[in-house]
Amino acid sequence: MTPILPPARVAFIGMGVMGAAMAANIMKSGFDLTVSSRSRSKAEAMIAAGAEWAPTAQDAADGAGCVCLCVPDTPDVEAVLFGEEGVIHGAAPGTVVIDFSTIAAAASAEFAKRMAERGITLLDSPVSGGPQGAIDGTLTCMVGGADAGFSAARAVFDAVGKTITLLGPAGSGQICKSANQLMIVAAMQAVAEALTMGRKAGLDPMLMRQALLGGSARSFVLENHAKRMLDRNFKPGFRAELMRKDIRLALGAVRDNGVFAPSTALAAQMMEAVVNSGRGGDDCASLGALVAELSGMKD
Amino acid sequence: MTPILPPARVAFIGMGVMGAAMAANIMKSGFDLTVSSRSRSKAEAMIAAGAEWAPTAQDAADGAGCVCLCVPDTPDVEAVLFGEEGVIHGAAPGTVVIDFSTIAAAASAEFAKRMAERGITLLDSPVSGGPQGAIDGTLTCMVGGADAGFSAARAVFDAVGKTITLLGPAGSGQICKSANQLMIVAAMQAVAEALTMGRKAGLDPMLMRQALLGGSARSFVLENHAKRMLDRNFKPGFRAELMRKDIRLALGAVRDNGVFAPSTALAAQMMEAVVNSGRGGDDCASLGALVAELSGMKD
Repeated sequence: MTPILPPARVAFIGMGVMGAAMAANIMKSGFDLTVSSRSRSKAEAMIAAGAEWAPTAQDAADGAGCVCLCVPDTPDVEAVLFGEEGVIHGAAPGTVVIDFSTIAAAASAEFAKRMAERGITLLDSPVSGGPQGAIDGTLTCMVGGADAGFSAARAVFDAVGKTITLLGPAGSGQICKSANQLMIVAAMQAVAEALTMGRKAGLDPMLMRQALLGGSARSFVLENHAKRMLDRNFKPGFRAELMRKDIRLALGAVRDNGVFAPSTALAAQMMEAVVNSGRGGDDCASLGALVAELSGMKD
Repeated sequence: MTPILPPARVAFIGMGVMGAAMAANIMKSGFDLTVSSRSRSKAEAMIAAGAEWAPTAQDAADGAGCVCLCVPDTPDVEAVLFGEEGVIHGAAPGTVVIDFSTIAAAASAEFAKRMAERGITLLDSPVSGGPQGAIDGTLTCMVGGADAGFSAARAVFDAVGKTITLLGPAGSGQICKSANQLMIVAAMQAVAEALTMGRKAGLDPMLMRQALLGGSARSFVLENHAKRMLDRNFKPGFRAELMRKDIRLALGAVRDNGVFAPSTALAAQMMEAVVNSGRGGDDCASLGALVAELSGMKD
């Protein structure tokens, strides 16, 4: 078996808001960096800062000890990894591939298996913390995959994240991310119902939120998403259409694992309704506006 | 209108676990105290400590500037306030009555109206924080009712609670308590689904909880109720049958206010199932065991 060594050159594929910020932190922490993206224009800043440009994923993987990617959805990851000019054609045995994308857990596990047949370790590591966490290098990394690969790539994780947890076999990171998203949407729905009830019953909802934050119902969602709902501030943030993608994945994950999950099902249906009611480009907390509207409130 | 003065003598009706602890703190803070309870035996400790005994609610209210009660449910409150030997027959105009019970918001509002006709202020103030909070005098008091009565009785609230919020007109405290409970049960259901998915997918659920506590899904429920679920520790705590009572009240409150509330409805149905599956005497976090069982897990 080819030994897995700490990487000297890291490749990063996908120069979206998240990917570009993560790549910058990886370069800052001392790695040689190769970047690749569908359109070169998005990579110009990184190239100017000293990164090498690779026109394809295959080229990016060639000579890199660690290949990172952060792309929108499952088919994008499949194309980057296994497409005609994909990572698998350029990566040497022993390479560690870290997929920071949020995609289907079952697909992640299958991709890892196909990569392992070539002696390549694929780790799934969806993140939480948003663009600011990516810029600050304080992301939460939920990692699934082989222990040896995780250890070898530890310095890369440390460059982008703060809370970094190896949770289990390949796909486990995606399962944990699904858990994260289903809990957030379920909490948003409950908070929206609670605040709407308070407003309709004549309570001051800001006072109500404050009182509830002092008790056992307190949560990040009650602190942050509830504030957005009460302020009618739905500027993203995290767009509802992206949350819909994530909660669809969570619904698939509970189904695939035979979990009795009525709360996840409800959360998924609500995010469909949020997007279908024209709120896809708003922050996902606009779920609160939909619940208020369906409760007969005018604003 | 009779002016409302700060009370010198406080009466406390209902010497359950919560009531007895709250009454002790009220006496400790310097008020003369009269206690009353269905069975005198429950009041013996308070009588030994210097409280006066009153055989009926009417007797307890006679001469007290503030009358507190903490009893199980709506009909109990109605009996204590308006029954043959109820508070209304002993309380002078200007008395402030604080109902610490968790009961129906609509009933609370109606009781306040009936009391107001006699010049008596009824404040609803359901609490959160459990027996330990009652003993420590650190309860969260969610108060509804008239401002003047609230100000007059402030020292009584300060004796039992830490976070004390006047939320709106009579019934508002009950609405806020319902919001608190619906958010907790909804969060427990989502947490149960997430942890069950993690276990069935081969993740270490304790690590998963730890990772999730680092992100936007963090909550008191994920910290506390999830730990109980993973430890299979369902010794109460807060009994499922009491949570069922509270979530039934929440379901009534969203209905009465015309709120679109599928999450509250689901939460209420789940607590019915928890109690009906024989878990009524367990801690309400045994919802996690039911979700695991319905997901085909053996333990």
